[in-house]
Amino acid sequence: MGVKYQQKYRVPYYESDLTGKMKLPSLFNVALQISGEQSTSLNRSDVYIKSFGLSWIVTEYLVDFNRLPAFNEAITVETEAISYNKFFCYRLFTFKDENNQVILTIHSTWCLINLETRKPAHIPDEIVAPYQAEKVRTIQRTEKIKPLEDSHDMLYQVRFLDLDANQHVNNSKYIDWMIDGLGYEFLVGHTPKSIHLKYVKEVYYGKKVKSRIYQDDLISYHEIVSDGLNAQAVFEWSRNEV
Amino acid sequence: MGVKYQQKYRVPYYESDLTGKMKLPSLFNVALQISGEQSTSLNRSDVYIKSFGLSWIVTEYLVDFNRLPAFNEAITVETEAISYNKFFCYRLFTFKDENNQVILTIHSTWCLINLETRKPAHIPDEIVAPYQAEKVRTIQRTEKIKPLEDSHDMLYQVRFLDLDANQHVNNSKYIDWMIDGLGYEFLVGHTPKSIHLKYVKEVYYGKKVKSRIYQDDLISYHEIVSDGLNAQAVFEWSRNEV
Repeated sequence: MGVKYQQKYRVPYYESDLTGKMKLPSLFNVALQISGEQSTSLNRSDVYIKSFGLSWIVTEYLVDFNRLPAFNEAITVETEAISYNKFFCYRLFTFKDENNQVILTIHSTWCLINLETRKPAHIPDEIVAPYQAEKVRTIQRTEKIKPLEDSHDMLYQVRFLDLDANQHVNNSKYIDWMIDGLGYEFLVGHTPKSIHLKYVKEVYYGKKVKSRIYQDDLISYHEIVSDGLNAQAVFEWSRNEV
Repeated sequence: MGVKYQQKYRVPYYESDLTGKMKLPSLFNVALQISGEQSTSLNRSDVYIKSFGLSWIVTEYLVDFNRLPAFNEAITVETEAISYNKFFCYRLFTFKDENNQVILTIHSTWCLINLETRKPAHIPDEIVAPYQAEKVRTIQRTEKIKPLEDSHDMLYQVRFLDLDANQHVNNSKYIDWMIDGLGYEFLVGHTPKSIHLKYVKEVYYGKKVKSRIYQDDLISYHEIVSDGLNAQAVFEWSRNEV
């Protein structure tokens, strides 16, 4: 198992939705901030990675929720690089409450891309060594997400502030685009139980994206599409108790 | 002068734009979070204010920049309720660097609205007493912002995650809508010197807003309009040194 790193975090009002629960995109923002801090503490900051002509990107998230963090709640976010193979790193995030009970977990898959070609690169042992993650041969296979047939579509224009230091749309923004079309009534009345999200292709400035949604009761299927498929996801929801 | 309150804050990657500077809307998010913390520490939380059937809203910002905070910079945000009269409270925010040098200041004007009528209410002394702000008779008059004639218009649909605990669009979102239409080239090449922003009318879910922009070299004029005028602003910019 890898080196663990954790940070305390108190959920501010601006990361909370109108019902007082932490916003879904903010979960991923905070998680990635904390993995960035771990990397910096291990002398593996983005600047160091860039010196290889490489950059980390997330390719997949699997999230399991017991519940969502609440406004003003003091939580602890723990992260650990679990294992890696030639192309992928597997990193776990665990959000815990003040009594050390698990609120949610995020299993994430990462790869390194070549900054010139934007194509996946082999992972140099030198880059990952300090995390003490296990080197494995197998590539983890997750469930295939089928292409959508019918869908209800929303259109979004990429905004300047959607972009991050990688010069592309930050990966948390996709989640905003995905859930927005579910509508007010659904979103105030439901909480996610699980999310499976795959990033397929980056989105850049100037693009219009289509957020395609197909909803089957408590499961919603999503695609983000611009010149081709950018991301796909499946969300399982539960009804909030009244 | 009023009771001062301050918090340290390290700028995370997700509050930073692609150039590594803190995002403009995030400045206001962080400022309001910290004034909320002061209020809670003085037993004047939003829940207490709500027990009067009232809620605080911001009506105006005057921001002066020496520069913007940078990604990963450790800053201190200090706030103080300076004075109040029958209808308005005046609160100062000062963002400082590690050497106690001022990065920027925000002069803000607040009023209490009646939660049923959404109309301004008299400010009870009981609510503001613990802040030890000076009671004054005069209402501060700021420069009038003229209505726009010509403009370049952008259209935005209100999203679920734009809403805050007040059930309306969070006031930092207006700034996102205002600057986005200035475009990539301008935004990577310029930094604000000052902002004067007036909130006129709340925006609710389901609305489409028009962001109107008139640009005269290094000054940009803005209006947010839906069923009527929601907000207006003037930004002064300086060119970044290359």
